[in-house]
Parts: sequence; structure tokens; C-alpha cells
Amino acid sequence: MNTKEKLKRYHDWLFKCSAYQMALNIIDIDKQTVAPSAGAAYRDERSAYLAGELFSLETDEEIVDLLKNLKDDPEVEADDRRAIELYYKKALDTVCIPKEEFVAFKKLCDESFDAWILAKSKADYSIFEPYLKRVIESQKKLYGYRSSDKSIYNQMLDDFEPGMDEEKYDAFFNALKERLVPLIGKVTNAKQIREDFLHQKFPIEDQKKFMDELLKYLHFDSSWGYQNESEHPFTSWTCENDCRTTTKYIESNVTSAILSTVHEVGHAYYEHNINPKYDGMILSEGVSSGMHESQSRLCENYLGRTLAFWKYNYTKLQSYFPKQLGDISLEDFYKAINISKPSFVRTEADELTYPLHVLIRYEIEKGLFNGTISTEGLDKTWNAKYKEYLGIDVPNDKLGILQDVHWSDGSFGYFPTYAMGTAFAAQYVHAMKKELDVDSLLENNKFNEVMDWLKKNIHTYGFRYEAPELMKMVTGEEFNVNYFLDYIEEKYTKLYQL
Amino acid sequence: MNTKEKLKRYHDWLFKCSAYQMALNIIDIDKQTVAPSAGAAYRDERSAYLAGELFSLETDEEIVDLLKNLKDDPEVEADDRRAIELYYKKALDTVCIPKEEFVAFKKLCDESFDAWILAKSKADYSIFEPYLKRVIESQKKLYGYRSSDKSIYNQMLDDFEPGMDEEKYDAFFNALKERLVPLIGKVTNAKQIREDFLHQKFPIEDQKKFMDELLKYLHFDSSWGYQNESEHPFTSWTCENDCRTTTKYIESNVTSAILSTVHEVGHAYYEHNINPKYDGMILSEGVSSGMHESQSRLCENYLGRTLAFWKYNYTKLQSYFPKQLGDISLEDFYKAINISKPSFVRTEADELTYPLHVLIRYEIEKGLFNGTISTEGLDKTWNAKYKEYLGIDVPNDKLGILQDVHWSDGSFGYFPTYAMGTAFAAQYVHAMKKELDVDSLLENNKFNEVMDWLKKNIHTYGFRYEAPELMKMVTGEEFNVNYFLDYIEEKYTKLYQL
Repeated sequence: MNTKEKLKRYHDWLFKCSAYQMALNIIDIDKQTVAPSAGAAYRDERSAYLAGELFSLETDEEIVDLLKNLKDDPEVEADDRRAIELYYKKALDTVCIPKEEFVAFKKLCDESFDAWILAKSKADYSIFEPYLKRVIESQKKLYGYRSSDKSIYNQMLDDFEPGMDEEKYDAFFNALKERLVPLIGKVTNAKQIREDFLHQKFPIEDQKKFMDELLKYLHFDSSWGYQNESEHPFTSWTCENDCRTTTKYIESNVTSAILSTVHEVGHAYYEHNINPKYDGMILSEGVSSGMHESQSRLCENYLGRTLAFWKYNYTKLQSYFPKQLGDISLEDFYKAINISKPSFVRTEADELTYPLHVLIRYEIEKGLFNGTISTEGLDKTWNAKYKEYLGIDVPNDKLGILQDVHWSDGSFGYFPTYAMGTAFAAQYVHAMKKELDVDSLLENNKFNEVMDWLKKNIHTYGFRYEAPELMKMVTGEEFNVNYFLDYIEEKYTKLYQL
Repeated sequence: MNTKEKLKRYHDWLFKCSAYQMALNIIDIDKQTVAPSAGAAYRDERSAYLAGELFSLETDEEIVDLLKNLKDDPEVEADDRRAIELYYKKALDTVCIPKEEFVAFKKLCDESFDAWILAKSKADYSIFEPYLKRVIESQKKLYGYRSSDKSIYNQMLDDFEPGMDEEKYDAFFNALKERLVPLIGKVTNAKQIREDFLHQKFPIEDQKKFMDELLKYLHFDSSWGYQNESEHPFTSWTCENDCRTTTKYIESNVTSAILSTVHEVGHAYYEHNINPKYDGMILSEGVSSGMHESQSRLCENYLGRTLAFWKYNYTKLQSYFPKQLGDISLEDFYKAINISKPSFVRTEADELTYPLHVLIRYEIEKGLFNGTISTEGLDKTWNAKYKEYLGIDVPNDKLGILQDVHWSDGSFGYFPTYAMGTAFAAQYVHAMKKELDVDSLLENNKFNEVMDWLKKNIHTYGFRYEAPELMKMVTGEEFNVNYFLDYIEEKYTKLYQL
């Protein structure tokens, strides 16, 4: 075969993989949003089979050889070569796993998700514990097949954020703690901000009406995007023109669904804006989890929590909740949605305490994989860490260990990327503000123009470059955690008049 | 291989097929309900590929041989043998088709559906016509590969309702016309019933609230069933515990979504109640389209349009629409939802004129396949037939030729089963009423007990028996159209005091 023939083979293979991947994504979206629970066992068994078919495609010996060969072929153009290198790396990590174990793990993850849903609805960790235990054991076994000299948890960290490991994350979290902990202390001792009005009864029906307006403001166009509801908000997609997000409404918390929507729409824009020539291949995925979270957290915090954002949207929100918010000024509303206070739920946490929520998960994950923490009694370990870091007593497992979906499907190593992404975002915003008057755009219903900047500078590249490379391209510098720390210090100093 | 080994092979094959079928069903449900339109091309190409993979499985030579061999193996127990016979028959009809043509047809059907959605939204048949033409040409070509001495349309009729052909349907429709046309004439000349109050403004939001109550009354349990919205209501499923229905709300018609929901929930119950041991195999599908429609039409008309049904539900409906229905008595509401009047849309038609809507489609289908009717100008042919049979002038293509989804994916031969199923239902209800006090159950919130009777006598068998066999098992007689004609004559004579 000459290069052209080889590339034809490669592109045929890519197309087949993308078909299975699409089916699995749609089945998963369906599962997490609307699929009737009693049919789960039937569906889970079959989607595991289909995942196995994709596994067979991805680990086909001839294909692995082809990838190995093509990645060093000088006739292959740069985009393809980059994708081929990534596929080859992925293949090496996968080909070592026995197929039946891979399929069994996929099935276990689906069952574990079902158990998590049930456990959360009953606020009972003991329902989920046996599944979590098996998921961890299986992950240890599957990662054990790789020929790597890194620890299993370091491999996991690297999978979600290439180049990262415990040592680097420890340094990162230490840098955060060093400046955040004293700041949190100051805020605790400062004059407190009123936010009781955010926790009145906000009928979900009216929240949904406001959401329709908000989605318009976000230019989240129904031709390429769709929002549903799920127990844990997420974003998924099949191609640039098919990006799905979900949200979750809470009657006693008017901003939860709003900010989670802005967050998820941030993920959706990233996928939507990737160069369509990458559709169906690995380059159409965001660079890394940290990069993905940088875009969602950027939207949630650096746009969605600003005064400018609410200058446009607040009167609309008031119009749906005149009794609850009619007497509350924009200024007071803005302050309230930024109040910093230790809380139970990560996805609803303020920007200042948020990294501590992530740190707790990171420490638990490290312990689960180095053997110092066990799934048995993990609810108590969780609660103890919340007491230690945030000084609060977790009242039940639903607000505690069962709040997040990630561990149910074995996504260990993902959590740290939330904090990392949040810090990436600060540096990107700093660069963006040199070129754009972001506040003016937000105030004037031009959210899309902010997205256009992100598209041009970040999104369009998809997975074409690694995260550090992209950071340098966009901001002219290496990643520097101080952009985040300066931002947060300035914001909270001003807010609490410290 | 001995029989046991062959059966193992067969069951492994069945499982694989069911996995692909499940994926295709979920992708299709997603497409028709929530998938963003701009992603259609990407998805359609890939679901056609997956349909091709299923095609390859179903037409695998070794499997066809295995099926041929097993169907005559006396050691195979009766249920398996029945399924194997059906699979073998299906394989013979499929194996003759070149795979690439099958895949191209699947893709064409998806594109044609997209074109139909667009055309309907613009009430413009010319957008849909080129697709319809290609779908018909492709169907002719694909059916042409079969070695059958029947005409193509007769093969299609037989596919949806085994044993039926044009001659039998002609006789059936003639029998209907003979007694319905004079009856319609009498109704036209009788004192008209008031129904203007059904066509006020009924906010969709409030319709949805009533729907939640109605679904509870129908015992449509969210653990095994789910309702969504779509342009054309439908029911789909992956297994007995995963049955999805859709509905469509119309602001100026309060009963449209209600009756279409009762109809679709009838389909869903059929699938839900099939013996779970048939899950994942052909026996888990209803016997035929006519049998399926018999169950949906039974629910819609013989239950949903009765006074007893509304004795329980009407005050609830009034409570959501006090302004619109507060002054309307139950009796007047009941009469209004049963009024017979020529109308444009089949799914909203009354029981008396409904068969004429079906007859029009049947006559057009015959013409499309015997060459006397062309897709060009078919909108005019359609309108002329509505003028001829129902005496009305179709105002636009949305209310005319574009109203139904069926032709977009090549389901020619399906329509007649709506009329046939409606007539089946009358005979089943006649048998059921010998054993059950249906009215009393409906009045007393025991819809589920009516479903239990259908489960025990009809649903549980799935595709275990052919439709005529089942009819005899349940009612002790061959199918007799007079059960339907007697019912309808009695109902409308009383309603209009003829």
C-alpha cells in the first residue's frame, strides 16, 4: 500500500469508529436523561457489547500497525499526523486489555451509574459502595495491563490532563491553599453579605421559562444544541452541530440551574466551535479535561457571575420572580450570587471555596489508589474532610459523597482538572480582555461575540495542540496560577471590602 | 454441531442483532424527538453504516444456513422454532439485496425524513417531492430483488399484515364503504352537535399539566415508559421495560394530544406486556401492524372516547381549563369529542370518517406502485381525493399530503392496517366485554385492569401466533368486519338520534 491507500484505509476505519462512538454517546445521553430505569439491564448489556465492537476496531492489529506506520510517514499532512499519533498512543493503552474485561468494565460502569442514581435518591452510600469498590478494583486491573512505570493514579491524571501527575497537582494545590486559605479566613471575619432571598421558593416551571430566555441570550441555538435535564448536569455531542447539555433545577436555589447551564453551554460551545474538518476524529475533542473545564468555568464564573452579565439579564429574572426578587437591587443580587461561604455541593460552590471541594476529592482519589483510603466508610472520610477543610458537618450522603457522578463510571483523575481549568480560564480571560471589552459585550446581548473570540483563539483548534502549547499560543506565556489567584483576591477583596 | 451448539450460536447471533437494533431504535427516537437538526447529516451517515452492520449480521450466509437447518429441527422447542422460522423468512427477503443499496436506502430514508420535517414546517410539498420520488424508486428496486410472484405493493401489504393483499383490502374497504357512506350521509343531515368549545385557546403548558394526570390514570409508569414530543406521534421501544411514546400539542385543539397519547400508550402497553422471555427477539414485537394498531385504536376509541373514561377524567380536565370548559357538561363534552365531521387530519379524525382517510392513502399507494399516480402533482391528487371522499378543500400541504410521516421512510402498505386494526379492535372489545365490566373499570380509575385483560389474552403472546390465529384464540371466531360496523352504527345512531 502506498501512503494514499493507507490513508484511505485509515479514514475508512475512522468513519467506522465514529459511528460506534456516536451510537454509544446517544445511548448514554438517553440513559442519563430520559430512558426508563427498568430497561437499564437490557440496555446496559447491549451497549457494553457495542463498546466491545468499538474496542475491537480500535485494537485491530492491522490498524495498530497502520497507525504506527503512518505516524512517521512524511507524506501525511500535519493534521492527520497529529490525529494518528494520538490514536496510536490510545491504541497502545488499549490493546493490552483483554476484550472481555473491557466489555465487563463498560457494563459495570453502567450498572454502577444506575446504583449511584438509586443511592443518591435514597441518600444511602451503602447502596453504591459495592459498585464503587468493584469499579476501583477493575480500574486498577485494567490500568495494570499497561506497560507504564508511572503509578496507576498518575496514569489516570495524565489521561485527563496530559503531562500532569501527583507531584505537579500537589504543587498546584499548595499554591492555591497558600493564598486562598488566608483569604477565606478574611472573608469569614468580614461583614457578611445578604443572600437569603436566593433561597426562597422558585417554582421550577418559572425557572424553565427564564431558562428559555437565558438560552437565547447565550445564543445556544436549537439547530445545533439541545438542553435536557439530568441528575448530574453534563455535556455530550456527536459532532460540531450536535451538542447536548443538561441542567438540574432546584426549587430552593434559583441560581443553581442558571450557573450550571452557563457552565455546560461553555462545554457545548467548545465542541461546536471546533473546526468541522475534524468532525468524527479525535481532533474534534477538546484538548484535555482541564482545557474543557477552562471553557465551561470561564463561562460560568468569568461571564455568568459578572455584574455585566446580570445588567442585561436581571430584570428578566425579576419579571419571572417579582415576589421573590422584585425588591432586590441588581447590586445586591450580584453580590449574593458571589457570596463566599462553606457549602456542601461542589457544583453550587462559590469561586473562592470551590478549589477546596476539588482538593478534597483529589486527596480521596490519591488515597483510594495508594491504599490509604478504602471505599468502606468512605462516606465518613468524606464528611471528615469537609469538616477539616470547610468546617461544616455534612448532613447526609446526598449532599456528601453521592453528589457527583464521576466515580460511578470510574473517572478518577478528572476532578483535579476542574480546579486546573478554573485557573487556566483566568489566564485566558486576562488575554481576552486585552482585545475585547467583555463587560460591554455582555451588557449588550453580545455573548456570541465573546464566544467568537474563544472560537478563533482556542476552540477551533480542538485537540490539534497540547494544552501547554495552546496556552502559550493564546496568552504568550506558560500557565501561571497567579492569574487566578490575583483575580480571586481582587474580586473578593472588593466584594467584602477587606 | 449438535442442536444445543447450534442453538447457542443462534442465541449469540440474536443477542448481537438485538444490540444493533437497540442502538438504531434509540438513535431514531433521539432523531425524532430532541436531536439538533444541523447534526442530521453527520448522524444519518453513521446510523446508515450501523444499519449496514446489522444487515451483514442478518444476512450472514452461515446464519441463514443455520436458521434453515434449525427451523426443521424437531429438538428445537416451539417458541424458538417459531422465531427461527420468522427470522429465516426475513433473511430470505433481505439476503437478495446488495448491502450497499440497503445502506444507501437507510440513509435516504433519514434524509427524506429531514426533508419531510422541513417541508411540513413550510407547508411546501415541493421540498419533499424529490425525496419521496427517490424513496419510491428505491423501494421498487429493493423489492424487485425478492423472488416473489406477487406485485410489489402486495408484498408490502403482506410485510405489514401477513396474509393481506390488494384483493382482500379492496373487499375490506368496500364492506366499510357500503355501510359507512350512508351512515355518514345520515349524520350530515342530522341535527349537528356543538363542539366549538373544543377549539378555544388551550395553553400548552396547562395541557401538559393535565397530561401528567392522564398518564397516571393510564398507569403509564415512568419506570418502564416515557413520553416525549415529536412532529408526528409514535411509539418505540428497546425491551418490555423500555417503551417510549411521543405526543404533539396543538393549542387550538384540547383533545388532539390527549387522544394521541391514549393511542400511543396502547402501543406501549402491547410491547410492555409481551412475555419478557421474548425480549431481544422477533417474538417480542407485536404480531403485525394491524394487530399493533388494534391495540392503540382500542385504547384511543373504545376506551378514550367513552363516557366512562371521561366520568373519571373530565372534572380534572375542567380544573385545568375552568374558563374554557367550566360551563360545559360532561355529556356535552362526551358528545363533542365524538362528533363526526369531515376533517383534514387523519390522526384527529372521528371514528366514523377515519376509515375514509385511510382509504384515500390506500388508493394513492396503489396508484404509486401500479404507475397510475406520480409523485409529481401528488399534492393535487391528494386534495382531489379529499374533495371526492370527504367533500372538503384542503387549504395547504401541511394539513394535506405532508401530514403523515409514513411515506418519508418508505412505509408504504402501513396505512391500511390502521383501518384493519380499528376493525380488529371492535371484535376484541366485544370479547372483552363478555368478561369485564369495562365501563365500571374506566370510571373507577382501573384502566390497568383493562390492560391486564389485554395482556393475558393478547399482548403476552407477542409474535408467537399470526394475527388470524390470535383472533380465533381470543374471540373464538375468524375476523368479522361487522363487529366494527355494528358498533359504529349503534354509536352514531344513538349519538345523532338517527
